[in-house]
Amino acid sequence: LELSRVEIVLVRPRRPANVAAACRAMKNMGLRGLRLVEPPSGLGDPEARALAYGAWDVLDGAIPATTLGEAVSASVAVVGTTGREVAGAWTPRRLAAEAAALAGGGTLGIVFGPEATGLTGAELERCHALVHVPTDPVHPSLNLAQAVLVVAYELRLEALARDAAPPPAVATERAAAGEVEAAILELRRALLEIGYLDAANPDHILAELRRLAARARPSPREVVLLRGLARQIAWAGRVARSGTGAG
Amino acid sequence: LELSRVEIVLVRPRRPANVAAACRAMKNMGLRGLRLVEPPSGLGDPEARALAYGAWDVLDGAIPATTLGEAVSASVAVVGTTGREVAGAWTPRRLAAEAAALAGGGTLGIVFGPEATGLTGAELERCHALVHVPTDPVHPSLNLAQAVLVVAYELRLEALARDAAPPPAVATERAAAGEVEAAILELRRALLEIGYLDAANPDHILAELRRLAARARPSPREVVLLRGLARQIAWAGRVARSGTGAG
Repeated sequence: LELSRVEIVLVRPRRPANVAAACRAMKNMGLRGLRLVEPPSGLGDPEARALAYGAWDVLDGAIPATTLGEAVSASVAVVGTTGREVAGAWTPRRLAAEAAALAGGGTLGIVFGPEATGLTGAELERCHALVHVPTDPVHPSLNLAQAVLVVAYELRLEALARDAAPPPAVATERAAAGEVEAAILELRRALLEIGYLDAANPDHILAELRRLAARARPSPREVVLLRGLARQIAWAGRVARSGTGAG
Repeated sequence: LELSRVEIVLVRPRRPANVAAACRAMKNMGLRGLRLVEPPSGLGDPEARALAYGAWDVLDGAIPATTLGEAVSASVAVVGTTGREVAGAWTPRRLAAEAAALAGGGTLGIVFGPEATGLTGAELERCHALVHVPTDPVHPSLNLAQAVLVVAYELRLEALARDAAPPPAVATERAAAGEVEAAILELRRALLEIGYLDAANPDHILAELRRLAARARPSPREVVLLRGLARQIAWAGRVARSGTGAG
């Protein structure tokens, strides 16, 4: 995947020094796109500026956001990193191998959680795939900048190898994650309307449907189809309720 | 190569903090053997101890030496790292691939020079091979601990791959194509019922949904969900038609 189509997303980083060091690691590996969800204060302080030496363009170009959803709304695919050995999690190398297919013609967001706690369960659910750096279980915790470095290093090697290889096939256009999520939320309302989702606990089943949709990486046209489907289901649900008084 | 047969050699590191951070990077990746040529003073200071958090065994076990020759005298092979793009230098990945052959039955020493200047010409001449991390030429300088991390990461991945018998590859179970098609046909009836598919020409849009589903490669569980969804949509459609007489 071209490195210009990768965005690093740091979620609630606590220490400005870690953000600064992550900027340097990104710049070392040729990455530029950075989004910060709830950035810490102090990114302009002399210590952080010094630690971001030479990578000030990355730091100053970082786009702030208030939620992960906002930060990745323009990304076609979202990959979450985890410090735990999660079943099915990819190595950074596997991520690099899959990145171009994942991103379609768009942008790939790679998400790193807060230093101490990592991403929340809900944030991990937003992700289409998970990545874990296979550190020694005896001493597993990489610091934030080091995790960014390893992932960026793998993406860089893959991009360099790709540059040296014959040109890729034309990728099908993929809808941005925010558009897919909007369709999912419209389906949620419709499926509540027809009683397919349990109003007391709709999000468990919905999460399964979301993963299914994410795996298919819909095109913009397919998102339009899904939204039309949601509207028609909602209409049938409303009529069914009002016509029979069953609601 | 077994990680116990790798030794990291830091030559004249200037800052104790960098040595400490390198110890952590080593420990993250399962390396233990460290030699320090002309180590800096201050390795026992609180800042360095704090930075070596959890990797004190590596730091305290480091073997000091006065020259590179002394530090690598027990190594079968010696690899030097360079921050410059030297003709013929290996990537860390190539090093990992060659490591076992290089080390024979013995120990491989991997040598990192001082932060600012790197190894001298005479020191590089002692090395059997050179390694360069392919950073972006715009911003090439990795710090010492990051260079150690990337090299150690590659060695670790190679060692893990070597350990792994046939790779686990716990692939998620996928539903058979016939099961997916049965769910699609059930959805077709339901979507006709609610008027989402045009009764005069239902199969054009259906083909698009079929492609979307095929791309997601649903699991058997997901096929069950989709069939449940189809039944619920069909139910709402029937009620809507009968309740209002719109059918």
